[in-house]
Formats: sequence, structure tokens, C-alpha cells
Amino acid sequence: MRHFTSVKDIENLPAILREAFEIKAQPFKDELLGKHRTMGLLFFNSSLRTRLSTQKAAQNLGMNTMVLNINEDGWKIETGFGVVMDGDKAEHIKEAAGVIGRYCDIIGIRSFAGLKDREADYSEHVLSQFIEYAGVPIVSMEAATGHPLQAFADIITIEQYRKVPKPRVVLTWAPHPRALPQAVPNSFAQWAVAAGYDVVVTHPEGYELEESFTRGATIEYDQRKAFEGADFVYAKNWSSYLQYGRILSQDRHWTVDEGHMALTREARFMHCLPVRRNMIVSDAVIDSPASVVIEEAANRVVSAQTVLKNILQSL
Amino acid sequence: MRHFTSVKDIENLPAILREAFEIKAQPFKDELLGKHRTMGLLFFNSSLRTRLSTQKAAQNLGMNTMVLNINEDGWKIETGFGVVMDGDKAEHIKEAAGVIGRYCDIIGIRSFAGLKDREADYSEHVLSQFIEYAGVPIVSMEAATGHPLQAFADIITIEQYRKVPKPRVVLTWAPHPRALPQAVPNSFAQWAVAAGYDVVVTHPEGYELEESFTRGATIEYDQRKAFEGADFVYAKNWSSYLQYGRILSQDRHWTVDEGHMALTREARFMHCLPVRRNMIVSDAVIDSPASVVIEEAANRVVSAQTVLKNILQSL
Amino acid sequence: MRHFTSVKDIENLPAILREAFEIKAQPFKDELLGKHRTMGLLFFNSSLRTRLSTQKAAQNLGMNTMVLNINEDGWKIETGFGVVMDGDKAEHIKEAAGVIGRYCDIIGIRSFAGLKDREADYSEHVLSQFIEYAGVPIVSMEAATGHPLQAFADIITIEQYRKVPKPRVVLTWAPHPRALPQAVPNSFAQWAVAAGYDVVVTHPEGYELEESFTRGATIEYDQRKAFEGADFVYAKNWSSYLQYGRILSQDRHWTVDEGHMALTREARFMHCLPVRRNMIVSDAVIDSPASVVIEEAANRVVSAQTVLKNILQSL
Repeated sequence: MRHFTSVKDIENLPAILREAFEIKAQPFKDELLGKHRTMGLLFFNSSLRTRLSTQKAAQNLGMNTMVLNINEDGWKIETGFGVVMDGDKAEHIKEAAGVIGRYCDIIGIRSFAGLKDREADYSEHVLSQFIEYAGVPIVSMEAATGHPLQAFADIITIEQYRKVPKPRVVLTWAPHPRALPQAVPNSFAQWAVAAGYDVVVTHPEGYELEESFTRGATIEYDQRKAFEGADFVYAKNWSSYLQYGRILSQDRHWTVDEGHMALTREARFMHCLPVRRNMIVSDAVIDSPASVVIEEAANRVVSAQTVLKNILQSL
Repeated sequence: MRHFTSVKDIENLPAILREAFEIKAQPFKDELLGKHRTMGLLFFNSSLRTRLSTQKAAQNLGMNTMVLNINEDGWKIETGFGVVMDGDKAEHIKEAAGVIGRYCDIIGIRSFAGLKDREADYSEHVLSQFIEYAGVPIVSMEAATGHPLQAFADIITIEQYRKVPKPRVVLTWAPHPRALPQAVPNSFAQWAVAAGYDVVVTHPEGYELEESFTRGATIEYDQRKAFEGADFVYAKNWSSYLQYGRILSQDRHWTVDEGHMALTREARFMHCLPVRRNMIVSDAVIDSPASVVIEEAANRVVSAQTVLKNILQSL
Repeated sequence: MRHFTSVKDIENLPAILREAFEIKAQPFKDELLGKHRTMGLLFFNSSLRTRLSTQKAAQNLGMNTMVLNINEDGWKIETGFGVVMDGDKAEHIKEAAGVIGRYCDIIGIRSFAGLKDREADYSEHVLSQFIEYAGVPIVSMEAATGHPLQAFADIITIEQYRKVPKPRVVLTWAPHPRALPQAVPNSFAQWAVAAGYDVVVTHPEGYELEESFTRGATIEYDQRKAFEGADFVYAKNWSSYLQYGRILSQDRHWTVDEGHMALTREARFMHCLPVRRNMIVSDAVIDSPASVVIEEAANRVVSAQTVLKNILQSL
């Protein structure tokens, strides 16, 4: 594996899932693999789970880690080309990427969608420029349109809990006070289809995701119908892709509560976290034994370590 | 030792003090004890000494460390229950604690008193929720009502310098431009009494600390009288407990100066730092040979390392 | 070597340059030298390259590292003497330095010029107070008047690329929207002269640097004349030393473009970064094969590691 920015970087999903469970069982088995290697973790945006789990994964592999909140610790980054840099941005992404690529053997980058310019966001220009100019492997720690380390951890979690070979996995939109990116639902739908699950995506009309991410999934506008027979319920808010970045609904009927869960086949409840209680999901559901959100977050170390191991092996 | 949030977590104070001096003499003796263990340091508030000394203590024991300014690096944390999270707080403490507990073997937490709601502060709800939901040992790096790593370092410092078996130890209030928590004086009084010293607490009327922390100490409103015969003077500002969080006095006569120190039995001057010069203490006193504030801060590594060693041994 | 704040701390520049190239070739040769040693990196100001490269250099030598954005993570620092600290600054530099000196074996400090009080800036009071009160070696990670780790990396870079024994090295002022310190050009001129190069400094009138730094260099107000026959062009903005901290010109004719470079003897283009494209230098020049800015930044690890190695050997 060279870069890790999408499910497309996974050659053989079943094989890497087996590897993930080996790593989960023996996290320190490869603790010499990363010796003399440095992982840089660059954050353009907030992070708790990704920050800690990726750092831990790298340390479990014996790597040194350096964490940078790039806009605060360093300099504001210009990403446009041909710009006369006479404003508040002191450093161009070309230099930032080139330099950090000389200090780090692998670079993890978090850079959220701006939600203003769909074309710019969906071109993944920050990630692309790092790939182009850093000269070392790049790992997405959530980019504008995808969050593959999360989705990989989600699939590990489903594999851990599933009782049937082909579980019914329901990704449901839920309300939220702010406009959020589509990165998490995009990746989750894409990875769940790739894993061979029976995937249903449910949301109010107007919240259709970019179709390449949901290809192979069923779109169902009736949330209750979607939940029927579900083995896994994955809740998440996102803003509209079609009316880009807009909030079209804050309908609390979509908040996942015990009534919703009663429709399922004793489904497990999942969410990538952080989660807004009583907006996305009721206290009763997230605090119930059906909720696997903490284990799902714990699996973030496993997905990151599996990815970093594969990249280290190819260096 | 499981958690460390109070002197009550110390089974045998003389024994752990002996252990502390062994660690001070040979800081790398247990450098393999923390192998494959991760210490998370979570800051809801500013920190210099605690941040560096606890990190160093963990590293001396061979642990990996991960430092998080939780509200800035991560997400703003909701601590209330049953809340509809539609405001600016994106993550609930239940999930934050649960998740970090899966990434870290020990968690240190700094969370100051808000000084608005006495009952909430004195219930130590942040610390309690981490203890309840993280599932791993929690170390207070200063909570709302106590700062036990500081008080432990203070006692180590007194043991290092005392010339008599039962020194007279005076905790004196001193003026400050802002309202400060009672955590440091609470813990210092409690630990100094537990250590068997002759403890005097002196402050203007209205500044009485919560009585369970000063039980066994003498309260003396006349600062000069309190200083007579003192072997150690510990200066600190705090806001009122009775009129909760209020500043009742900024009387500069309480600033510890050479006149005050002349009343003592060549007392050592102590302060937890950071200290406001010429408010809490005059330049002449803090710069004099009587001042042991730097050694006291150096002992923060010792207290932290002793606590972490005990917790690691019980894992 | 005890402290590293200037070229004057280098006893033998040719010898330390040889050592630097040995370290560049074998970065992990001394990986046990820093065992049980801690490097503290303190930032009063933003940093990307210095932060990452110095951290990496310390890790390559086996040191533990602790990074602190002192004003944000810790407390705002008072640097005046005799002050009644009743304002927004909670900690005095005397205590900060003294305490951090007990936690760290070597301290790196970044503290930019304020550009308001020339005498204060040129007295290097922050650096001096750390040297006086910390009790451990201090490394400048850019101070008010110098940036020696950068200049050392610059000289390494020139040695790496030079084709003649005594290259013509041109330091050129270039326009910038903000007032910047003189630290980088001061150190570059001083080190380049010390290295025995033919050094030319070119800038509009009024931008003369403090003369002790440019002694031995030629001052040339005609930029085009300065560029003739240059082997290396080092671009940098700075504010006026004479009219202290003022911007006297934003003349874009000084922006280094292909026309300028055509005057040289196929000169290499250098800059310390971050660089404002199309202000300091045109896209065409910085993106050309003549540009060595990324290699120059990569050499920051080499200069830092060489310095830290020498300090560790003298501990």
C-alpha cells in the first residue's frame, strides 16, 4: 500500500480484515517495524479519536510521532495556485507538503470539506496536493469527501458483532444543528457495499449522497421501513450534496430512539462519534447494550495500525 | 493504587514518601515498568508544570504519552445529563471518557472549578464521570477541589528541608487580581495535616476553606501571629468558599514580604507556581535563599512518578 | 558547546560542517547518546519547520521531547523586573525558566522580536533570562535578532551545492505585506561571512541591517548589480532596523523573478520558508530546478542534530 485515502487503496478487503483481527489480538507484534520511522499527524481541523488512535497505532508499531495543528502551531496555508500571497496566509501548501515530507516517513492529514465549493471539496485538493508534493505516503485522517480510517474501523466492528453472513446494514441520516460534511456517510456506504453487506441508506429527500459512494446500496426515504430487519444501524448527520452544504431538515423524528430500534432485528447501534445526544440518538439507545460506539472507536487503533503496517512494509 | 484524586488514595503516607525519595534518587530504575502502556494527559485548562512533569514522569517509567488540550484539539465537552445537544458542545463526557479509556492505560485530567456553582464544583463531576466511564485509572492533574499531585510534591519538599520532626507549617492566603479555585490550599492543608505537621491556616475572615480539608489545622485570622515560629510558609491565593467564588479582599498587607518572613523561624518559602510577584510574594522573598519554589516544582516529577508507578504496579 | 544562540558558539565552523555531513549520511549513528535526556521545545511564536525538525533531531539522538506553546498551553509570561503582577500575565520568566530547567536537559526557545523596542529586542532579554535562570543549555529556535539553526542549515545547503571554493552569495531583501524581524537575514549574513563566502547584501536604502551582523559583506543598493555573477540567491524580507520595525518599501520590482535569476551564474535560489509566493519570489523561480528551498528545509534536521549532539556530548 502506498497512500491510504479510499477503499480503492485496499487490494483485498477480506485479507486485510483478517490482518486487522490479528493486530487487534496482538498489538505489539510488529513493534520494531516502525523503528527509525516518523509519522507526522497534521490537523487542519479538530480531532479527538483520530488524533489519539492514529498516534497510538504508530507508537504500537515503534514509530516516532509528531503532531501539528497546522494553522495554529504553524502558519495559515494557501492552497490556490498563482496567488500573490499578500493576505493572511503565510505558507503555500506546496512548500508545507514538500518540507513535511522530508521530516516524516508517513503523513496523516485531516482536512474537512469547506462546504462552500462542491467542486473544490470533491476534487480533494488538499489531499491531492500533499500526495503530489510530499513525496511520501499520505494517510487520510478524514478529508473533504471521505473518512476511510473510520469506515475501515466500522467494518471491523461489524465483522466483530455480525451474526449472519450478510447483515442488513442501515445508514440513517439524523438531525444536527450545524452543516456537516458527507465524508463519513460517503465512506461508510462505500466500504459497507465493498464488504458485501445488504446496505440501505435512508434520509429525507434532498440528502442523496454523491452516487459513486452509494452505488450498490438501496436508497430508502422511509426511515421506519429502512429499519425493518436491520442488523446494524449507523446514524450520522450530513448536509445536502445536491444543494451543497445546506441544511434541508432538522426533523427530530429522524433521531434514532427506542421506537426505531424496536423495528430492527436487535440491531447494534453505531456512530463514528462525537455524537450529539438526543439529536442524533436518544440517551436510551446510546446507553443501551445495543450500542457499540465505544468498541467502534476502540477499533480506530486497529484500522490505523493495519494501514500503517501495510504502508511501512512497502517502504 | 487504582485512582489518584485525593490523599485518601494513599494507604500509607510515610511508606510512599520513602518510595518517592527512592525515585528521586534513581528516576530510571523502573524504566521498563510502563512498556506498552500509554498515558493520556487531558487538559481542560492551562498547565505548564503539571503538563511537563507528568509527561516526564510517565516517560521515565517507559510509558508512551499523548497530550490533548481537549476543548481546542478535540471538541467542546458536554457534562450534563439528558441534554439535547443542539448547542456548541459536540461531544458528551460519557463518550469522551469511554473512548479515551480505550486508547490509554492511565488518564490524567486537569479540570478547574468553574467557581459559579459550588455544589457542582464540589461534586467533582468531571473527575467522577471519567472515573465512572473511562474504565481505567484516573489521575487528578488538578480538579475542582483538589490538586493532590501538587500537595504530594509539597510534602516531599517539606520532608526534604525540615529540621525538626514536627515542623510548623503555615498556609497563608495572599492577594491576587482574579478569583482562583480552592483546589491547591484544600489539598495542601489536608496533606500537611495527614503528614503530622503543626498546620496553621491564615486568611482574612470570609476565606475559610471547606472544613473537611482543614480539619486538624489551626485557623488564625492574624497573619503575623500565624507566622511566628513558622518553619515553612506556603503562600496561595484563593477565592471565598463561603461566598462562593468571590474576591473579598485584595489587601496587599497580606503579600508575603521580608517583614513577614522575619517573624518566622527562618522559614522556607513555598508556592505551587505560577506566582504573581509582588502580589503574592515580594521579589526579595521569592529571590532569597529561603525560597524553595523551584525545588518544589522539580518534585512534581517525583510525586507524579511515584503515583504512576503505584498505579502501573496494580494494573 | 554549552548554549547555541549565535555563530559565536561555534568554535570551528569547517569542523562542525564536516560533522553535519556525517550526521546527514548516518542520522541514527548516535541514537543512544540522548538516552534518559529530555529536550523541551518552547514556542512563544508559530513554527512549522523548526518545531518538526528540532523534535526529529532530538528523537534521532534518542532524546525524549516535550513541546509547549507556552502562552497558550501554559501561562502568559512576564519578562519585566520589579513588576507588580496584577495584569494578564500569570507567570514570571524567572520561575518559568527555573522550572523548565528542572524538567529538561536542553531547552529550545522560539521568541520573535516585538519590533517595537529595538533596545529590548537587541538585548535578547527572553533568551538571556532563560540562559541565566534555567541552569541548562539553551538553543535558540529563532530569537529576536538571530536564527542560527536556520543559518547553519543554510551554510550546509550552500556547501552541498557550491561549485566553486568561494561562491558569490547574495542576500536580497524582497517585499512582504507585514513587518518582519531581522533575525534570519542577520544570522544568514553573519554565518555566510564566517564561512568565507563572497557575501553581498542588497536592499533598498533604509533597510541596512545592524552592522555587526553584516561586517565583511558588501552592501549594494542596486539589486540587479548585486545579482550579477551570483552563485546563490537568498531572498528574505525584513523590516527596517534604522527606523525600527517599519515597512519602508513594498516595491515589487524587488520580487525575485526569472529576469533577476538570468543575471546570475545559474544561481541556486534559497529561502528559509515560509515564503509568500509572488511577493518574495515568483512561482516560476521557486518551482524551477534552481530552487533548493526544500533541501534547505530538510537540512534543518541536520543543523539541529549537529548542535544537539555537541551539547549532549558536553553534558
